[in-house]
Amino acid sequence: MKKIEPRTLSGFMELLPSEQILFNQIKEKIERTYKKFGFLPLDTPIIELSEVLLAKAGGETEKQIYRFNKGDTDLSLRFDLTVPLSKYVAKNYGNLSFPFRRYQIGKVYRGERTQKGRYREFYQCDIDIIGDGELDIINDAELPSVIYTIFKELGFDDFTICINNRKILNGLFENIGQKENSTQILRIIDKIEKIGKQAVIEELKKIKVSEYAIEKIIEFIEISGTSKEKIEKLKNLNIINETFETGLKELEFVYNNIKLFGVPEENYKIDLTIARGLDYYTGTVYETFLNDYRELGSICSGGRYENLAEYYTDKKLPGVGVSIGLTRLFYKLNELGLIKATKRSISEVIIIPMIEDLKKPIKLATELRKLGINTEIYSNNKKLKAKMKYADKLQIPYVIVIGEDEIKANKIKLKNMQTGNEEEIELDAKKIIEKI
Amino acid sequence: MKKIEPRTLSGFMELLPSEQILFNQIKEKIERTYKKFGFLPLDTPIIELSEVLLAKAGGETEKQIYRFNKGDTDLSLRFDLTVPLSKYVAKNYGNLSFPFRRYQIGKVYRGERTQKGRYREFYQCDIDIIGDGELDIINDAELPSVIYTIFKELGFDDFTICINNRKILNGLFENIGQKENSTQILRIIDKIEKIGKQAVIEELKKIKVSEYAIEKIIEFIEISGTSKEKIEKLKNLNIINETFETGLKELEFVYNNIKLFGVPEENYKIDLTIARGLDYYTGTVYETFLNDYRELGSICSGGRYENLAEYYTDKKLPGVGVSIGLTRLFYKLNELGLIKATKRSISEVIIIPMIEDLKKPIKLATELRKLGINTEIYSNNKKLKAKMKYADKLQIPYVIVIGEDEIKANKIKLKNMQTGNEEEIELDAKKIIEKI
Repeated sequence: MKKIEPRTLSGFMELLPSEQILFNQIKEKIERTYKKFGFLPLDTPIIELSEVLLAKAGGETEKQIYRFNKGDTDLSLRFDLTVPLSKYVAKNYGNLSFPFRRYQIGKVYRGERTQKGRYREFYQCDIDIIGDGELDIINDAELPSVIYTIFKELGFDDFTICINNRKILNGLFENIGQKENSTQILRIIDKIEKIGKQAVIEELKKIKVSEYAIEKIIEFIEISGTSKEKIEKLKNLNIINETFETGLKELEFVYNNIKLFGVPEENYKIDLTIARGLDYYTGTVYETFLNDYRELGSICSGGRYENLAEYYTDKKLPGVGVSIGLTRLFYKLNELGLIKATKRSISEVIIIPMIEDLKKPIKLATELRKLGINTEIYSNNKKLKAKMKYADKLQIPYVIVIGEDEIKANKIKLKNMQTGNEEEIELDAKKIIEKI
Repeated sequence: MKKIEPRTLSGFMELLPSEQILFNQIKEKIERTYKKFGFLPLDTPIIELSEVLLAKAGGETEKQIYRFNKGDTDLSLRFDLTVPLSKYVAKNYGNLSFPFRRYQIGKVYRGERTQKGRYREFYQCDIDIIGDGELDIINDAELPSVIYTIFKELGFDDFTICINNRKILNGLFENIGQKENSTQILRIIDKIEKIGKQAVIEELKKIKVSEYAIEKIIEFIEISGTSKEKIEKLKNLNIINETFETGLKELEFVYNNIKLFGVPEENYKIDLTIARGLDYYTGTVYETFLNDYRELGSICSGGRYENLAEYYTDKKLPGVGVSIGLTRLFYKLNELGLIKATKRSISEVIIIPMIEDLKKPIKLATELRKLGINTEIYSNNKKLKAKMKYADKLQIPYVIVIGEDEIKANKIKLKNMQTGNEEEIELDAKKIIEKI
């Protein structure tokens, strides 16, 4: 028979078992933390009607969509978990309790140009809190504690959750009459580290930004110091603009309240340079960095939005949320050696019978499982050497050997595969567990 | 703005939070059991190259495939988890330890005609044991214990795992010279309950089955009694055919060994009428029925196959596996009232502060979470009535109210929402947990 080469699409992650175990451990830690904070689970379809899914999309995003017809129906694969959430909340508005706190962990699809570490199918792990008509700013102060708990759980200490508020920059631009120029100005400001302050000023002059406006912009981007100093300096800019003032008040409130939620001061700060690309966000924005690996980019981002589902409903649904792009994060952490696949098996114990009658070995396996121990029994008819090789390759922590002698003495041989220690124990699940 | 109606495709399950909680509980129980038996996790892409995915498919299945082009690439969504497993094992052969025991729980896609209880996107929960070259028959006896453990975990007692062996019927047909007619004969036999024995005999005569052959066929389908009696009667058919004899020997072995793996006799039996539609299976086959709801069809099925990945590799990879179609099962059990969504929240406790300074309430929430309690804090600025209504709607089991008086006395008010009991307790996470 002609064989077809078994291959996986590029841009699609498919792991070997040991890496998959590690991946799942991380995913489970994220999910467990989301649950700890009382977020409700949600699982929406991967396929949606294009009309529904692309209600808002446009430009870059739309080009990346996996879109196709099945019969006469125009379908698309979801490219994030936010649009499905919008649809879900608009559709089920009457059946939900607000604030609606939900988490969703699932695969999304974007046909990006494939390159190392970029995936076309990847997991997003999202939480959002959606209000009905309004949502207190205190919720913006709670989310960093979820982020903090997750990365601590994953074994990281040296990370910083950066917060900012979109209203501050928007208000500044309004105040200096540059609202229409804002995108262009942002692009120029972004280059300051590369081209220097003078060149930025020149470029701003070229697009006819007034001297007063340039002065305010430069004053703003030169704000530095501790988070508290930044707040003081923002106040001292003396900008009389409602948006700016609201943003500053919100930022100060969020900053002051994050600590309440148990996040140590070294793990968060105000960073006026983060803005989150998307227009979507209207208030607080978050980005999270591993301090020694800033080049990784943000490993958990999100923010506050004014209106979740305006494409589907007249109801005003403000919300705040964050998202972890798990697949890319896993790839990067693995590449950097910051996480390491150590387990090659789910089993904690493998039972290796060296006798024909499998009754007692199997009974022991069943009892160990009932007591909560993941247990495998090697029941295939092989030589001891082959059986041990299997246990060894899978690095199963404990091997129980049961041969004729052991059966006669009602004992088992327990081998700790890490230390090499071997001991005889009574054939009794509870007694064996004490040694594990 | 013109609104787009927020809707979900028909044939795609999308649950309200309380049902989603229940669905996830079932999914987690299945996964936990798979792990208990030492199966390794696997997560393959939902999208594959059509050439790879459809190496074998044909007929009915192919029509149902979600297939489309992205750029020049011909892609398909997986329609089961077995083909991706075949590809995976062929691709990673050198990196796996055999027998390779893996579980996979994931969504698959089939564009079936939509009707009640039929889904186009649905979860399959699969386990398989793959051998390298050979795989002992004892593995066929182990799988029923996995099925048994799962359905017991899910709260069912009255179910039967039916086993049969494809070689028996194949051998019988070979023996009576009807190998080529087998599909036609099976179709006729299947009607016996509807049209009666005489009519079946007439139809068999019409397609020129010999009298001797008809006699053997009737003798076979009239075999009844206990599992042990069935084995005896099969032996007494005196069919001299290697396939038949191997099948009978395997069936007897599997039957005799299932008990060893801790499955009580009332939960399994030999049923010579089950055959599993697919040609795929070559030996043992399983179907599982809820005895009072046989009309549900099989809730967990599978079997033994000779060669997992022949389309991709020359390596002979025999295996045995079972699968649970979770989405349909969930729908049916829910419809019959055999499962019931009772939880509306993931939180075990909600803290409701009635004070401005949220320091202590938030600190308590953080401590409760650290102690393993899923805890929500209602931090939005609402009246007590609105806050209690939220807790009530979500049916969160315990409400902790902290007001001015409580803060002064360093206490909290703990309300058991089921009994309505209220008591004052010291503001101390550990002391509170004792009461929960």
